[in-house]
Amino acid sequence: MEYLEVTFRIRCAPDEANDFVQSLLLEQTVETPLVVANRNEFVRDQMLGHVIDVRSAGENLADATIALPVVNAATDVAQFLNVLFGNASLHEAVSLLDFVAPPSILSAFEGPRFGIDGIRGRLGVPNRPLTCSALKPVGLSVEDLATLCSTLTLGGIDVIKDDHYLADQPFSAFEERVDACQRAVAEARTKGGSATIYCPNLSGTPDAVFAQATFAQETGVGAVMVAPMLIGLPTLIELRRRVDVPIMLHPSFAGSLRIRPDTMFGRIFRLYGGDAIIFANFGGRFSYAAEVCGHIAHRLRSEWQHLAPAFPVPAGGMTLERVPELIDFFGNDAMLLVGGSLLSAGDALLDRTRAFTGIVADYALAKQ
Amino acid sequence: MEYLEVTFRIRCAPDEANDFVQSLLLEQTVETPLVVANRNEFVRDQMLGHVIDVRSAGENLADATIALPVVNAATDVAQFLNVLFGNASLHEAVSLLDFVAPPSILSAFEGPRFGIDGIRGRLGVPNRPLTCSALKPVGLSVEDLATLCSTLTLGGIDVIKDDHYLADQPFSAFEERVDACQRAVAEARTKGGSATIYCPNLSGTPDAVFAQATFAQETGVGAVMVAPMLIGLPTLIELRRRVDVPIMLHPSFAGSLRIRPDTMFGRIFRLYGGDAIIFANFGGRFSYAAEVCGHIAHRLRSEWQHLAPAFPVPAGGMTLERVPELIDFFGNDAMLLVGGSLLSAGDALLDRTRAFTGIVADYALAKQ
Repeated sequence: MEYLEVTFRIRCAPDEANDFVQSLLLEQTVETPLVVANRNEFVRDQMLGHVIDVRSAGENLADATIALPVVNAATDVAQFLNVLFGNASLHEAVSLLDFVAPPSILSAFEGPRFGIDGIRGRLGVPNRPLTCSALKPVGLSVEDLATLCSTLTLGGIDVIKDDHYLADQPFSAFEERVDACQRAVAEARTKGGSATIYCPNLSGTPDAVFAQATFAQETGVGAVMVAPMLIGLPTLIELRRRVDVPIMLHPSFAGSLRIRPDTMFGRIFRLYGGDAIIFANFGGRFSYAAEVCGHIAHRLRSEWQHLAPAFPVPAGGMTLERVPELIDFFGNDAMLLVGGSLLSAGDALLDRTRAFTGIVADYALAKQ
Repeated sequence: MEYLEVTFRIRCAPDEANDFVQSLLLEQTVETPLVVANRNEFVRDQMLGHVIDVRSAGENLADATIALPVVNAATDVAQFLNVLFGNASLHEAVSLLDFVAPPSILSAFEGPRFGIDGIRGRLGVPNRPLTCSALKPVGLSVEDLATLCSTLTLGGIDVIKDDHYLADQPFSAFEERVDACQRAVAEARTKGGSATIYCPNLSGTPDAVFAQATFAQETGVGAVMVAPMLIGLPTLIELRRRVDVPIMLHPSFAGSLRIRPDTMFGRIFRLYGGDAIIFANFGGRFSYAAEVCGHIAHRLRSEWQHLAPAFPVPAGGMTLERVPELIDFFGNDAMLLVGGSLLSAGDALLDRTRAFTGIVADYALAKQ
C-alpha cells in the first residue's frame, strides 16, 4: 500500500503526545471512534493509516509523522488538501510542517507548465536573475498605469506585474487596464525596451477569473497572476488548464503560521501549478527569517518527480541596495521583485529602473 | 466616504504598536511607501484609509481597528478577502479579530439563500433543534452507505450529510453513491421515515464541483455540502448561484488560529452563502471554548443587514448524553450533528438514532 506521509508539529505535554497523534490519525482518516472503523474490513485494512514516529521538538512540542492512505488522498485536488491538513487545521495546537507524497499522488498534479526554463525561454534570458516590478499603488488611473508600464519596460524590467490590489475597480477597470498596459509594454519594447512580460492580476469567482484570463491572453499578455488562497487552490488547477502563459502566484491570505512557509510556498504552490511564486522576503516589511526564505527557494527549485522547478520571487520592501546581497543569497534562478523602492523615485523612475536592471546584469556577469 | 472597518490583534511591544498599525494600514491599501501614495491626488484622498484606534489587549498585545476604503474592498468576492486579511495574514504577529462592513459591501453578497427558515420549511420542522448525522467512515461501500441512509432516515434524522472525506473515490464513486443514498433516503421516507434531507459532499476543481452539484440536484438531494476553504470561498459564491438547495459548509482547512473563529465561521461563512455551518464544538475532540462556540452561533443567527440567519451546526465528538446540555446552550435554532457516537451502536443504530431524535423532540417540547 502507498501512503502520504505528513509531519505535524504538536504543542502538548510530552506524556500526551502519543495519544494526540493517534487522535490526529483518526481525524485525518476515518473521523470515527476506532471501534466503528474496525467493524469494516476494507476500512480497517485500507483507510486507517498509521503513525510512523513521534519525537520531541522542544519543551511541550512534538513532531509526529503519520502515514495516510493514498487511496483517499489522491482522489481530487481539493481532497488532497483535506487529507493533508483539513480537520487537523482546526486544532490550534497543530501546525503542518511537511509532507512526502508518493508518485501516485504527485502524478495527479501537472505542476508548473513553464517553470524556470519556460519563463527564461519566453524572455530570452538564459542565465541571470530576473527582474520584476509592480504596478502600484491601487488607485492610479489606467493612463498612469500604462505610463508606468512604458517606463519600466524601457528600463529593462523582465516582468511587470499588477499589484495584487488591482482587480476590476471602477477607477481602473480590468479590461481597459490590461489592454492599455499590454499595449504600452509592447510599444516600449519596439522602442528599445527589453523583452518585458506584462502580468495582470486575476480576481473573483471562477467564472470571472477564467473570463479575465481569456481576455488577457487575447491582448497578448506574457503571464497572469492569481492569489491562490483567495480564489482557491483547485481553481488554480483549472486556470492552469485554460491558459498557456506562465502563472505567477501571490501569497495573499496564505497566513503562514499554521503551515510551515517552505511547505506552503515551496511545495503546495508549486504542486498546484505556479511557475513563479512570490513570498515575503527577509529583511523587508515581513518577519520571515533568511533561513525560511532559503528553504522556500530551495524547495521551488529542487528536483521533485516530474514537477518543473519554479522561480522564487522574494518580495516585500526590497531595495536596490540589497540586490547584490539577494543575488548572493538566492543565486541565479530567482526573480527579484522591487516595487515601492523603484516607484519612490518619482520623475527619476526610468533612471532608477535602469540602475536596478543594470546592477542585476553586471553583478550576475561578474559572478560568472 | 465609506469604509470597511477591520480589527486586528497584534503581538508587539506597547511602544511599537502605533507604528505597526500604520504599516498594516499601508499593507492593506497602497502597499507602497507613503511618499508614493501621496503623489497622486486620488490615491491620497480615496485609497489610504486611516487608523480608528489602537488599544492595549494585554501584555505585548494590541487591538487595532483600521478603516479601509470600500471602493477597493467591494470590487469582487476575492478582493474582499484580499483587503480584509490578505498581506496582513503573512505577518505572524497579526490575527484578524473582526470586521464591520457597510451596506455597500454587504449588498454585493447574497448570503444564505435558504437560511434557518428555508431549511425548516423544507423539513416541515418549525420549532425544535434539528438533528444531523454523517455517513462515515470513508471506505464503506456504496451499498453500506445506502443502508446507513435508510436506517438514519427511519430513525428520524433531519439531515444526513456525507462525511467530508467522501469524494469521488473508486470504492464509492460520487454519482453511484449520491444516486444510491438519495434513493435510500427517499424510499425510507415512504416507509414512515421523517422528511429527511440527504446532503452529499462536493469536492474538486470548480468544473468538478459544479458538475457534481448538477448531478446531485438531478437525483433530488435536499442540500449539498462543500468545505469552502478547500474549494475557495469565491467558488462557493458561484455554486450558490448554480444550485437551488441549501448549502452546508464544512470547516476543513479553515485553520482558525489566525482568524477569530466567530469571524471566520459566524461572519465570513455566512456572508459567502452558507445556510448551515458546521464548526468544532466545545467538549468534544476539539479545543474550542464554549464561549467561542456561543459567539459563532450568535453571529450566524443575529440580524445582519439583508443576510438571512444560518444554522449553527456544532459537531466533533458529540454524544447523545450531551443533547440536553447542547439544546440549553445553543437554543432552538441549531442543528445538532452526532456522527461517530451514533455509528458506534453497530447493529443497534436504529434504536440509538431514535433515541437521539426522541431526546431532541421531547426535550425541546418540555422547554416550550
